[in-house]
Amino acid sequence: MISPIKWEDNQVVMIDQRKLPWEEKWLTCRNYQDVARCIKELVIRGAPAIGVAAAMGMALGALKINTNNPDIFYERLKKISDFLASQRPTAVNLIWALKRQEKRALSLYGQPVEEVTEALITEARAMLEEDIAINRRIGANGVQLVPNKATILTHCNAGALATGGYGTALGVVRAAIEAGKKVEVLADETRPFLQGARLTAWELNKDRIPVKVITDNMAGHFLKSGLIDLVVVGADRIAANGDVANKIGTYSVAVLAKENRVPFYVAAPLSTIDRSAYSGAEIPIEERTPKEITHIRGRQITPSGVGVLHPAFDITPSKYIKAIITEAGLAQKPFRSGINRLFKKINKIF
Amino acid sequence: MISPIKWEDNQVVMIDQRKLPWEEKWLTCRNYQDVARCIKELVIRGAPAIGVAAAMGMALGALKINTNNPDIFYERLKKISDFLASQRPTAVNLIWALKRQEKRALSLYGQPVEEVTEALITEARAMLEEDIAINRRIGANGVQLVPNKATILTHCNAGALATGGYGTALGVVRAAIEAGKKVEVLADETRPFLQGARLTAWELNKDRIPVKVITDNMAGHFLKSGLIDLVVVGADRIAANGDVANKIGTYSVAVLAKENRVPFYVAAPLSTIDRSAYSGAEIPIEERTPKEITHIRGRQITPSGVGVLHPAFDITPSKYIKAIITEAGLAQKPFRSGINRLFKKINKIF
Repeated sequence: MISPIKWEDNQVVMIDQRKLPWEEKWLTCRNYQDVARCIKELVIRGAPAIGVAAAMGMALGALKINTNNPDIFYERLKKISDFLASQRPTAVNLIWALKRQEKRALSLYGQPVEEVTEALITEARAMLEEDIAINRRIGANGVQLVPNKATILTHCNAGALATGGYGTALGVVRAAIEAGKKVEVLADETRPFLQGARLTAWELNKDRIPVKVITDNMAGHFLKSGLIDLVVVGADRIAANGDVANKIGTYSVAVLAKENRVPFYVAAPLSTIDRSAYSGAEIPIEERTPKEITHIRGRQITPSGVGVLHPAFDITPSKYIKAIITEAGLAQKPFRSGINRLFKKINKIF
Repeated sequence: MISPIKWEDNQVVMIDQRKLPWEEKWLTCRNYQDVARCIKELVIRGAPAIGVAAAMGMALGALKINTNNPDIFYERLKKISDFLASQRPTAVNLIWALKRQEKRALSLYGQPVEEVTEALITEARAMLEEDIAINRRIGANGVQLVPNKATILTHCNAGALATGGYGTALGVVRAAIEAGKKVEVLADETRPFLQGARLTAWELNKDRIPVKVITDNMAGHFLKSGLIDLVVVGADRIAANGDVANKIGTYSVAVLAKENRVPFYVAAPLSTIDRSAYSGAEIPIEERTPKEITHIRGRQITPSGVGVLHPAFDITPSKYIKAIITEAGLAQKPFRSGINRLFKKINKIF
């Protein structure tokens, strides 16, 4: 199973997800600006993976701050954190990971700068390992929801590539298979960036998990035909009431699943839940470049001079969601109290 | 306004819709086999346009039958008709047009073969003109449903390119604009063949009608956001109960429109209504080549070895449809009697 990012010889190495599945190319980030660019340009994507990348970016930034003066160090570190945070607006794990690194650094205030830096590196590497462990717990909590011989629809890529490894939505798939269940995945191709056709298909195929690709507009047809037993997707940010921001098209799949009485699940770590957002209306939606719509693999598909709209995410109201699968267990309706219960539980354990 | 097909010097000339919008290339069909290939390979597509092409193909076939013996002539003509009918299964206008040509030929049984051939040519050319006139009536009947300053969502291409000219769904758009209304069109890109991004965008832009392209999975988001006032699509075949077979993804748009209380209309000529199909379950759904999914503009997007599913059409149950707009007026719920009423009316007039 692949992990899309690693800390190696005081550098951050990532597989270039823009080039998959055609080319398996690893990029080396030598400074935090490289990491920021990789986040912005989707070399690495997926909320949990972006979180790990940001944490490593901050460690890398700390390494390059050329001072022994703690005040200058902390001031620069804060700027690095803010710069990394500004790369993408929707996935809350980015901010969550940076806040965690800021806290770690502040907890060592007064120690030599080298020690703080070492601690940030250790923390970033721990966050990568933790993320994989969390995903395994998400998977374990989701297994009960997957019947044997299930066909599972997923949208975008919430797999190993979108996380430290193992995946959230695809973590549930992997856990079901490890539990001996027979599972086939239908992957929405997920225009415009084709994360389903490229990334979900690639990582499942690599692990010999049966997968077929469909265009996004086929999902409704197969939900109606009875082919699909359940839907599992990831999330970029979840509001306190259970509304989910995720890749554009998720809302449509959720409505179509409900219309056809197919359960719709969201799999995500607690770090994706933003309890400061009262509902989905408070989650910022990123708009990316029109070129993602007008061009595919560098070739133009629309007539020149014709405009496009290009939201990268949408909001799925919680009423369409059967359960949110987290490392602390399932949240169900009413989601606001269900989510609070999970946070209380996890705070008791850790 | 473009017409995608013409009869010229005893040949059939079509704009190659596989190449639009990048290249405006006209192909010449010298025999019925050329026409059949153009229908099968989507040089020409759209139910009404396929009907015209088939009628012209039959006339072209008749021209090349080298006999004065009526029995041989009619036998060969029937084979030509059957061959053309077998090119695509879902659009009923193909069969409708061929049956009409068969009837025309039979009405002249006993006349010299040259005269029958001439009549088939005349009939095919008349069908092209009739189709444009029908679309103008569809447009006129649809105008009342379009508010001023409307944003209209459409799926696939039910425009001039899909018909003899003017269009069915886009005929309603054109009629609204001719009536002085301000209209903007959102075009679903319509994977896999991109009829929206390529053809709808091209023909509306050419006529200076405001159009923006969105990916198919954005339609739900914009139906929910309140941006879209109504949806109008075409049809490949309509069953007696109002169930509609149309381009894959139409069903999803219809469900999402209903969920968000946006009216969903189907615009089609009566020749698209197949009263021998009791419901949508009886309409055959074409599966096209996997390559339409795995490749875009000749470039592969999925990993090698990963399978796809590839229905080209889906069925929208009539409960999601507010009205079917035809040349004879609107059919509304209950559709079975509404449709019968339209046929009675038109049979009285003509």
